[in-house]
Amino acid sequence: MLAEIIAVGDELTSGRVVNSTSGFAARHLFAAGHEILAMTTVGDSPAMIAEVLARAVGRADFVVVTGGLGATTDDRTNEAVAAALGRPPTLFPEILARIEQFAAGPAVGPHPLEKLAWLPAGSEVLSPGAGMAGHLLVHAGKPIFFLPGVPEEMHHLLTAAVIPQLAVWQGGSALAVRQRLYKVFGLEETEINRRLASLEDDDPRIKIGYYPVFPEVHVSLTAQDHAPDETGPLFDRYDAAIRRALGDALYGTGDETLEGVIGGLLTARRQTLATAESCTGGLVGHAVTRVAGSSAYYLGGTVTYSNGLKEQLLGVDPETIHRHGAVSGETARAMAEGCRRLTGADYALAVTGIAGPGGGTPEKPVGTVCFGLAASGTGGQDICCRFRGDRSEIQIIAGATALDLLRRTLLNKTLDFHAKAR
Amino acid sequence: MLAEIIAVGDELTSGRVVNSTSGFAARHLFAAGHEILAMTTVGDSPAMIAEVLARAVGRADFVVVTGGLGATTDDRTNEAVAAALGRPPTLFPEILARIEQFAAGPAVGPHPLEKLAWLPAGSEVLSPGAGMAGHLLVHAGKPIFFLPGVPEEMHHLLTAAVIPQLAVWQGGSALAVRQRLYKVFGLEETEINRRLASLEDDDPRIKIGYYPVFPEVHVSLTAQDHAPDETGPLFDRYDAAIRRALGDALYGTGDETLEGVIGGLLTARRQTLATAESCTGGLVGHAVTRVAGSSAYYLGGTVTYSNGLKEQLLGVDPETIHRHGAVSGETARAMAEGCRRLTGADYALAVTGIAGPGGGTPEKPVGTVCFGLAASGTGGQDICCRFRGDRSEIQIIAGATALDLLRRTLLNKTLDFHAKAR
Repeated sequence: MLAEIIAVGDELTSGRVVNSTSGFAARHLFAAGHEILAMTTVGDSPAMIAEVLARAVGRADFVVVTGGLGATTDDRTNEAVAAALGRPPTLFPEILARIEQFAAGPAVGPHPLEKLAWLPAGSEVLSPGAGMAGHLLVHAGKPIFFLPGVPEEMHHLLTAAVIPQLAVWQGGSALAVRQRLYKVFGLEETEINRRLASLEDDDPRIKIGYYPVFPEVHVSLTAQDHAPDETGPLFDRYDAAIRRALGDALYGTGDETLEGVIGGLLTARRQTLATAESCTGGLVGHAVTRVAGSSAYYLGGTVTYSNGLKEQLLGVDPETIHRHGAVSGETARAMAEGCRRLTGADYALAVTGIAGPGGGTPEKPVGTVCFGLAASGTGGQDICCRFRGDRSEIQIIAGATALDLLRRTLLNKTLDFHAKAR
Repeated sequence: MLAEIIAVGDELTSGRVVNSTSGFAARHLFAAGHEILAMTTVGDSPAMIAEVLARAVGRADFVVVTGGLGATTDDRTNEAVAAALGRPPTLFPEILARIEQFAAGPAVGPHPLEKLAWLPAGSEVLSPGAGMAGHLLVHAGKPIFFLPGVPEEMHHLLTAAVIPQLAVWQGGSALAVRQRLYKVFGLEETEINRRLASLEDDDPRIKIGYYPVFPEVHVSLTAQDHAPDETGPLFDRYDAAIRRALGDALYGTGDETLEGVIGGLLTARRQTLATAESCTGGLVGHAVTRVAGSSAYYLGGTVTYSNGLKEQLLGVDPETIHRHGAVSGETARAMAEGCRRLTGADYALAVTGIAGPGGGTPEKPVGTVCFGLAASGTGGQDICCRFRGDRSEIQIIAGATALDLLRRTLLNKTLDFHAKAR
């Protein structure tokens, strides 16, 4: 079904509070097979709430409204519902009774929380036992769910009440949905788009999305069909085509990370890793240790930012630096070999480069980064790349390239992945 | 002025990516004195984009649209603008020329990024030199800003182009506004709020905002008055009060960073730094090298993730580790002293801790992190903290705490800043 999500609150339109409820609702409703037409955030203005609510009810099959249900003066959603849909607030005595049981009121005058017991005429309380705001109003044959803005309560009611009730509402007509996220490093978004463009127009039940998440690009595949039996084979066919098109640049799917994939490979082989970093200053080591349990395969290493430390700690021959430069394939390889000698790791990964903004030369401009990899039983490797971007971007893409160099080596993949970047 | 913010992208309506750009825009536009009528998120559907855009232009004084400006087939904002406002896409030859200069295209056929050079007729490029999407279209006398969905680019253009251009647009009726962002490490948001709460209600021309940006908290001060002569003294008075209330935990303002402040202090003293990291895996070194020119004071250091490397590289006495543990003030101090001996730096900073999820004990639970600092001519220092959070959060707050320990030492400030966290 087509959904609209409306979040209400001045704290959201002033940017003081980040709106996390709409994204949560979108994710869960989408996963349940619904399509989200629009998500709107408005302040505590009855006129604006009424306007967007009326429009949403006209456009979507159902609406989820979060926030503005509290007992304070700035909670004005019910007022807006009265204006937009002609449903005046009505006292629900059973709610008032529960409120009075829950929190003692004054001897004289209205209970300070009484406002919570006034809901649009015709509402149905979503979670009668839970002492939680939240109600359903069916208007013009469409369900409108009103949920609290407090994230925990909203999350609970959405998953425990809204989604199950929608399934009943829909009866047999739900879409079956399958989704996967493909994670790519080393191919630009436009190149990925070129490789996958022909798949996009094949079938209206298939949707492919591209999301640059620097320095990676993520690709999503969504297959949806009204016949659940069709969706699986349809999804598998496109999944295989996408994997073929992305090739070695596809490093993982879903929640996988480059450092996690490397951790898995090293753990399976019971091999160890050390790092020798210059221009990345420790970024590669830090990425490796983001993985829980990385102490099983990561020994540590050095950050040799100065040439003196490259010689002193890693035993790089001053002649190598003098002849080829601190940023050279030769120095990178010598750093990696020195790091392996020092730590006894199975693999040692070295990075040396010019992150800028200063330090570039015509032969080696800012963005030139060289990588070395020393491994037990092989002669070592080195490769130099030239990256574009500011200092931070060059450091980040260099760090990811170092990890990808190791990943490809562990998988016996070709190393000329960044030849285009040279 | 009244604003509407529209975010475009299937990744947002499917809940796969959290929309952070709309909240950023709301916060900054609100702080600049604008009121946000509505924030709407729609998928990559030209019909929906056109519908919400037309409505926003009718309702608000200006509109900010983010996303859907890329070169791939799912970027369809321009198509929607043509439909909604009757502004057909037009080729901007100067953009195409810059694209061709920036990325070589094929010998035959259109450039794969050519789509970026087609903008709605009458558009004005926002940042001509920067190679960044983003344009302004004035329609029916109202400015519509189209910004990239990539958060970093969007943040940059909003603050560097949109807000200043709006100020010009508003002309003389504008409020005189002065703003400052205060950057705080080591105090929780609620404590900061407690210290500043009394200032908030003093004067309606003053606005104070709180923004947790993990692991820091940023505080904004906005002073606005219709009389420009009043705004300066008003602002200065509150600026002084905020600085007094925040004390040593205020490390900088505006674009300053913890690592940048440290770089400035070390540069001024012509002193050098080295790092010895364990549980942060290189994060501290990387933070230090994010600063351009850090090679002037940062020598490098070691990542000693294994106990063996702590002994071998840093000369930590195995007896120290055996008696006090790898995570102890004694080991942290020995790591720092060993690192200073190894590198000859004026200051050596060491971090060793339990980032989790495994490895905790009743005496030293996950989140226990010890810091050591060795300096020329002093006996060295160490301090242990206990942080809450997941592995990544513990690493990040530990890295920042190490830097703050150095900052406070360089400024001769007290070190018991995290005593509450113990």
